Amino acid sequence: NRIGLDEAIFCAGKSVDQIGAILELANARGAGLLLTRLTVEKLEGLSAANRDAIDYCAVSSTGFFGSLKPIESRGAIAIVAAGTSDIGVAREAERTLRHAGVGATVIADVGVAGLWRLTERLEEIRTHPIVIAAAGMDAALASVLGGLVSSTIICVPTSIGYGAAEGGRTALNAMLASCAPGLVVCNIDNGYGAASAALRILSSSERLRRSGV
Amino acid sequence: NRIGLDEAIFCAGKSVDQIGAILELANARGAGLLLTRLTVEKLEGLSAANRDAIDYCAVSSTGFFGSLKPIESRGAIAIVAAGTSDIGVAREAERTLRHAGVGATVIADVGVAGLWRLTERLEEIRTHPIVIAAAGMDAALASVLGGLVSSTIICVPTSIGYGAAEGGRTALNAMLASCAPGLVVCNIDNGYGAASAALRILSSSERLRRSGV
Amino acid sequence: NRIGLDEAIFCAGKSVDQIGAILELANARGAGLLLTRLTVEKLEGLSAANRDAIDYCAVSSTGFFGSLKPIESRGAIAIVAAGTSDIGVAREAERTLRHAGVGATVIADVGVAGLWRLTERLEEIRTHPIVIAAAGMDAALASVLGGLVSSTIICVPTSIGYGAAEGGRTALNAMLASCAPGLVVCNIDNGYGAASAALRILSSSERLRRSGV
Amino acid sequence: NRIGLDEAIFCAGKSVDQIGAILELANARGAGLLLTRLTVEKLEGLSAANRDAIDYCAVSSTGFFGSLKPIESRGAIAIVAAGTSDIGVAREAERTLRHAGVGATVIADVGVAGLWRLTERLEEIRTHPIVIAAAGMDAALASVLGGLVSSTIICVPTSIGYGAAEGGRTALNAMLASCAPGLVVCNIDNGYGAASAALRILSSSERLRRSGV
Amino acid sequence: NRIGLDEAIFCAGKSVDQIGAILELANARGAGLLLTRLTVEKLEGLSAANRDAIDYCAVSSTGFFGSLKPIESRGAIAIVAAGTSDIGVAREAERTLRHAGVGATVIADVGVAGLWRLTERLEEIRTHPIVIAAAGMDAALASVLGGLVSSTIICVPTSIGYGAAEGGRTALNAMLASCAPGLVVCNIDNGYGAASAALRILSSSERLRRSGV
Amino acid sequence: NRIGLDEAIFCAGKSVDQIGAILELANARGAGLLLTRLTVEKLEGLSAANRDAIDYCAVSSTGFFGSLKPIESRGAIAIVAAGTSDIGVAREAERTLRHAGVGATVIADVGVAGLWRLTERLEEIRTHPIVIAAAGMDAALASVLGGLVSSTIICVPTSIGYGAAEGGRTALNAMLASCAPGLVVCNIDNGYGAASAALRILSSSERLRRSGV
Amino acid sequence: NRIGLDEAIFCAGKSVDQIGAILELANARGAGLLLTRLTVEKLEGLSAANRDAIDYCAVSSTGFFGSLKPIESRGAIAIVAAGTSDIGVAREAERTLRHAGVGATVIADVGVAGLWRLTERLEEIRTHPIVIAAAGMDAALASVLGGLVSSTIICVPTSIGYGAAEGGRTALNAMLASCAPGLVVCNIDNGYGAASAALRILSSSERLRRSGV
Amino acid sequence: NRIGLDEAIFCAGKSVDQIGAILELANARGAGLLLTRLTVEKLEGLSAANRDAIDYCAVSSTGFFGSLKPIESRGAIAIVAAGTSDIGVAREAERTLRHAGVGATVIADVGVAGLWRLTERLEEIRTHPIVIAAAGMDAALASVLGGLVSSTIICVPTSIGYGAAEGGRTALNAMLASCAPGLVVCNIDNGYGAASAALRILSSSERLRRSGV
Ligand SMILES: Nc1ncnc2c1ncn2[C@@H]1O[C@H](COP(=O)(O)O)[C@@H](O)[C@H]1O
Ligand SMILES: Nc1ncnc2c1ncn2[C@@H]1O[C@H](COP(=O)(O)O)[C@@H](O)[C@H]1O
Ligand SMILES: Nc1ncnc2c1ncn2[C@@H]1O[C@H](COP(=O)(O)O)[C@@H](O)[C@H]1O
Ligand SMILES: Nc1ncnc2c1ncn2[C@@H]1O[C@H](COP(=O)(O)O)[C@@H](O)[C@H]1O
Ligand SMILES: [Mg+2]
Ligand SMILES: [Mg+2]
Ligand SMILES: [Mg+2]
Ligand SMILES: [Mg+2]
Ligand SMILES: [Mg+2]
Ligand SMILES: [Mg+2]
Ligand SMILES: [Mg+2]
Ligand SMILES: [Mg+2]
Repeated sequence: NRIGLDEAIFCAGKSVDQIGAILELANARGAGLLLTRLTVEKLEGLSAANRDAIDYCAVSSTGFFGSLKPIESRGAIAIVAAGTSDIGVAREAERTLRHAGVGATVIADVGVAGLWRLTERLEEIRTHPIVIAAAGMDAALASVLGGLVSSTIICVPTSIGYGAAEGGRTALNAMLASCAPGLVVCNIDNGYGAASAALRILSSSERLRRSGV
Repeated sequence: NRIGLDEAIFCAGKSVDQIGAILELANARGAGLLLTRLTVEKLEGLSAANRDAIDYCAVSSTGFFGSLKPIESRGAIAIVAAGTSDIGVAREAERTLRHAGVGATVIADVGVAGLWRLTERLEEIRTHPIVIAAAGMDAALASVLGGLVSSTIICVPTSIGYGAAEGGRTALNAMLASCAPGLVVCNIDNGYGAASAALRILSSSERLRRSGV
Repeated sequence: NRIGLDEAIFCAGKSVDQIGAILELANARGAGLLLTRLTVEKLEGLSAANRDAIDYCAVSSTGFFGSLKPIESRGAIAIVAAGTSDIGVAREAERTLRHAGVGATVIADVGVAGLWRLTERLEEIRTHPIVIAAAGMDAALASVLGGLVSSTIICVPTSIGYGAAEGGRTALNAMLASCAPGLVVCNIDNGYGAASAALRILSSSERLRRSGV
Repeated sequence: NRIGLDEAIFCAGKSVDQIGAILELANARGAGLLLTRLTVEKLEGLSAANRDAIDYCAVSSTGFFGSLKPIESRGAIAIVAAGTSDIGVAREAERTLRHAGVGATVIADVGVAGLWRLTERLEEIRTHPIVIAAAGMDAALASVLGGLVSSTIICVPTSIGYGAAEGGRTALNAMLASCAPGLVVCNIDNGYGAASAALRILSSSERLRRSGV
Repeated sequence: NRIGLDEAIFCAGKSVDQIGAILELANARGAGLLLTRLTVEKLEGLSAANRDAIDYCAVSSTGFFGSLKPIESRGAIAIVAAGTSDIGVAREAERTLRHAGVGATVIADVGVAGLWRLTERLEEIRTHPIVIAAAGMDAALASVLGGLVSSTIICVPTSIGYGAAEGGRTALNAMLASCAPGLVVCNIDNGYGAASAALRILSSSERLRRSGV
Repeated sequence: NRIGLDEAIFCAGKSVDQIGAILELANARGAGLLLTRLTVEKLEGLSAANRDAIDYCAVSSTGFFGSLKPIESRGAIAIVAAGTSDIGVAREAERTLRHAGVGATVIADVGVAGLWRLTERLEEIRTHPIVIAAAGMDAALASVLGGLVSSTIICVPTSIGYGAAEGGRTALNAMLASCAPGLVVCNIDNGYGAASAALRILSSSERLRRSGV
Repeated sequence: NRIGLDEAIFCAGKSVDQIGAILELANARGAGLLLTRLTVEKLEGLSAANRDAIDYCAVSSTGFFGSLKPIESRGAIAIVAAGTSDIGVAREAERTLRHAGVGATVIADVGVAGLWRLTERLEEIRTHPIVIAAAGMDAALASVLGGLVSSTIICVPTSIGYGAAEGGRTALNAMLASCAPGLVVCNIDNGYGAASAALRILSSSERLRRSGV
Repeated sequence: NRIGLDEAIFCAGKSVDQIGAILELANARGAGLLLTRLTVEKLEGLSAANRDAIDYCAVSSTGFFGSLKPIESRGAIAIVAAGTSDIGVAREAERTLRHAGVGATVIADVGVAGLWRLTERLEEIRTHPIVIAAAGMDAALASVLGGLVSSTIICVPTSIGYGAAEGGRTALNAMLASCAPGLVVCNIDNGYGAASAALRILSSSERLRRSGV
């Protein structure tokens, strides 16, 4: 990958055999890998050796294959999740960052239906220059954060909800049409994408620092 | 009308001639009328006599034709609008209530992009047992109110916004899929409908009071 | 919950383990809970102790965990369902009200394809100041009730039907665009939400009574 | 036309010149024509001779060009319209039938928001073996008629309404997903199509009568 | 049922227990019933007595419960299906008609991709005053029939196809927007509805014959 | 342009000034240009010199600016249009081909509502190895041609129609989901694109001829 | 089939029994067949004799039944796939061509996220006069190829992706609205259709060669 | 505004009078303002004094009211536009940045239909740590940039295009579903929003620099 992001294997459209083959290749190259959308069923279908080489997280369906970088930076990124059901997506973002050596703070269950829960954590959130906001249904969390926090806010709509939630499209549209300015948005349930965007921003900041712009 | 709501004339699909004919009939019966979606162009197309008999509001495109009931009740209903562009819809609701003899409090420009503006008015909003919330784009105002205010909340999505706002459908869906429980929703831009619902609730309350349930 | 509505656990997005943990916590606090969207499979996955503490209703997939309030009010709310397939949603509304100590009258199978069945029950429906109307497909029941009954009408579209019923969206849109004025609408299949709205209205009525507005 | 339906000119996509040319041709052949979607502007753009040869109806934007057949049958078809705004579509159906020599009964403003108005006309509607039902918004009229009247019911959704009415698509879907069995549906605002279907049915009836099936 | 159509039980949304209860009631009344959308799994879940009383058709998932009327009319109705995959829907229509005592001619696999197959059967189709046309994907069959056959044409879009076929919506829209005049359309996969419409037309024809209009 | 297609200027999103500037540049380079979506209003806004240098066609809103190639090939391509309203799109395709030095045969008004009109021209259509088929509404013409003609068939859906025609999307989907195999499809109203595809195919044929594959 | 394309059996909507019956018939006629969308489960349900007569490919879910034509042409067609998940669709196209006696070059995993991978293969792709491009998600591969390669480009959107990929509709629309001119598009996942279009073009080229146009 | 972004007035939903009143207020406060979506017609409706105080840009419909900050930073942000029609949106972004004292590099007409044009500017683009990419139709530019440039990429879909471009929704979805990782997306045509996001990122970088994370 020539743009500085680690390689990730999106397992959703791949058979156990295909995933196994990719792991063998990575192993041969001595490369570590991030696996996303890896179900428990597929994990269990892998060879014992491959399974043992994977540090698996069932909440986010992600795995770290091979050796893991140490954490090199901390404190830059908060991941804020509206409801308990959004935690899988939040965790996918956290694990993608962790795989790249970046530690993040996860703050969950602060949806606006109970605004005081968000208010209690607001100062903590504000200390992070980059905020990833995961929310489904009405995604009102994104707009409230956008109005209260001056950090960069990367929104991830989730597919949580039914009926008019339309599989995450309502959250997506609400985030895009937010009354708060300067929010940016990723695809539905794309915790991996939000984390990748945060990594791009960290890298841009580093370049800006060096160039002194 | 046999369900206790005043008659209103929806002028959007009607020609100036059709509206004129309805006014003549109402005049002959000695009846007053609420006119909605009456553009200035149509107003000016009416006969001088009809025009003079109309108390017109350009912001909401509504008119009171004939004599108006006195205000019989006050303090029950707050109408909360997120942005200045939502005021037309809020005003349509207010004028529908006024035509039925009900005074309402309008609280505008309290969208969640500037949450402190809403917070400043919150105690005032809470004193009203019924709240009409008009908002477009992401409609986050509805969810925030729903989590902070125990009153009955009637949501009116507005068609304000562009792109992913989808002409009000995003606001509509966000209100329907809100993380705050017990919100009820009207059609896009339907200030008249929200006011009619509030009038049904006032009447239900009156019946509940009398029956002592 | 600071807006006066009981806590409900939406089980659809939660694992058996997560639900079990919530029940332990509630048990420790001595709190009762309403469980919604609890499938028989998940119910059976719970510990025997938790299962025994749940009063389960398979038609609505709801459970009462722990002790239940006595019924404190009756006669205010009718729940009207168009077809037999809408009964699950109607029952979710009824059980949510029951959990809050409110008794409701359920009137089922009165869809407008057989208008005389509705006509026979009309006087009974009219005695209730608040009516919850659950209907799928064309949702014509809502408009017919809206024209005949002056009560507050809370509409719940259901996902019953196929093809052009579009998973409940046609019923939802028809209720929102109804030719009868002052209907309010909840999300598709959201019996819980309709009941919560009715509870808000009961509470508003109580406040209006006390304030004498 | 080889299927027994008169030729009609759909003027919406045609320039004044194109319409003029078609009229010259028809004139040369001595043929009469039905013109639909003919705006007043286009009518006025035609030559004086052509304009004089047209019997125009502004409500339905239709014109009869050339000589008109006498009415040969009456009493078979009722056209029922929900609101005053649906009258244009109802009139397009009536004029299409009239052009084919068939008289129809138009019954307007009987939408279900005031069900008693429909009930008063029900016996009259029932005397017609074929009913065309034009309605917009929620189109509940179609389902109510479908449950109360055993005649053939041809539904025409209209584009009346805003927001969730979605330009007639909600009415269309509600008619297609109706809880009343055996309704058939035409395209949005297609009064011409509904009348053509009624003419096919009259012709089928004639064939059934002759064959004695 | 007061509009002259036999009662049919739509089994898709009902449990085996609910279906069993309905059959007991019908049995007690000595009534026959048409069952639609009855899967083999549900059929096998019924009691042996109920199962024996059902004449089941797996292609259309329909069942006749109890005694069956003799065929009283034949030759009026042709059911034309575009592809082999549309036969289930065609058969649902045929069985609905059969249950009402009406025999129909089924003509299958005459889609327009092989127009000569349709041409070979055209004269036979034309002898039927009423034609039900079932087609999925592009539904071009409906338009071709509409241009070549003067009979009444009742279109049933089917959900056959993938991608741009959009689960039958493309066929539905193509039938509604057909370039051939006077087609009428039922809901997607609604063979029952098409047959019910045909029965309404037969009954209208009978009334027209008697009244001599 | 490095893929062998002539440059075309899409005027829809450009101001008169911008178009004028492009023409000056082309003039300076001595280059000819194809102008598409050029309205009469914009044409008239251009300088007299530019206007004189344009061979304009109002039916297709296209212009040839500067000198025109001679026709170098004929007989390879037929452009078939379903209705008179589709002629604008057909003409855009014809003029794009003409600008590239390719003559095409236009066959109009052969929609399937009058299948005999198509049948009469079928042998003529078949003599062309490449067929461009323009149709709106149900687009049944494409499927009928696809089943009867072995030539390459490039389909262009048009935005002709209303309601369920959905601005050309129904025609587009019907062409994509056609029951006839091997049809290829361009964007709605994109006569320019269909012609460009035909030019690619002519060029591919030339290469295949030379390579003898 | 009268348009020169081999018969293919689309197995998705057919039962094992129906497929078996078709194979018996083909066997009796001594005809070979292409089977598409044949799952392993259905394959295993067939009789041993039929199973043995099928050359099955699990990646594309296709089978060759009976004897296979020799390859008669090579080098004309490249099939380019963006990601590994698009290979099933690419293979369906390759196998359809192979069944018709045409060899194709498959070039996979050249999506634009790693543009250098595409660049490395560009000269090889350019040697093919016809290119089939299979891509999901954003389908940017199609536009990039369209700008760099003058060959005929047949685009097949795939249903790969989630959320805003909308089951292939985003790829479909992006290909149709491509900024590169003269792309043609098939239905989502329709590798069979793309190959059929390529066969039509080969046949058109042959005719053009013979006629010398 | 408490999040550090300058105030902007969105003029699309406001009357000339409303805009005038806002300008008077700003003038009284001595504040400068950014005006967006200000049409020439509205500009000309303002008082001469207000008009004179506005530095207007017709391409982006933006105005600077009052005195303008000096440029304080340069070189951090590139704005890349695919086609000439996307320049309005690109310019809205550039002017929003300029109003905040940030200079940006605009690189236009580098859509992927002519990939070499983009390639020629690639090194220049890469020198900017933040890239705003504006593109309509298929929006392939975003994915190509995403694969070639490691900078932070903020995508703005534009409403350029017709038919399957669906008013910008196809570009929006393609950007969200991009095969390149870590892209973030704003609402359709929202150049203001993209610039606001870039300002948030500049501010986050500044904070990261200071904290040394
Ligand atoms: N959860 C995810 N969501 C979206 N994209 C992903 C995800 N995980 C991996 N990817 C992207 O998919 C690419 C791998 O795709 P593939 O080569 O098909 O495994 C990675 O390089 C990422 O750009
Ligand atoms: N059936 C339901 N439909 C919609 N919302 C519900 C339902 N049941 C519970 N809820 C809401 O979901 C909240 C609980 O969500 P959670 O904390 O995720 O269990 C409750 O407080 C209710 O506001
Ligand atoms: N994978 C496929 N996708 C689309 N169409 C197909 C496919 N396979 C076969 N077909 C078409 O479907 C026809 C067969 O349909 P059927 O008669 O239902 O088996 C073939 O002649 C092809 O035109
Ligand atoms: N072109 C634009 N697109 C989206 N949002 C905008 C635009 N211009 C201004 N805004 C936002 O709209 C707010 C002003 O809204 P208002 O108070 O209605 O004028 C600003 O503070 C911005 O957040
Ligand atoms: Mg919670
Ligand atoms: Mg404001
Ligand atoms: Mg029933
Ligand atoms: Mg009325
Ligand atoms: Mg077949
Ligand atoms: Mg014609
Ligand atoms: Mg890959
Ligand atoms: Mg250009």
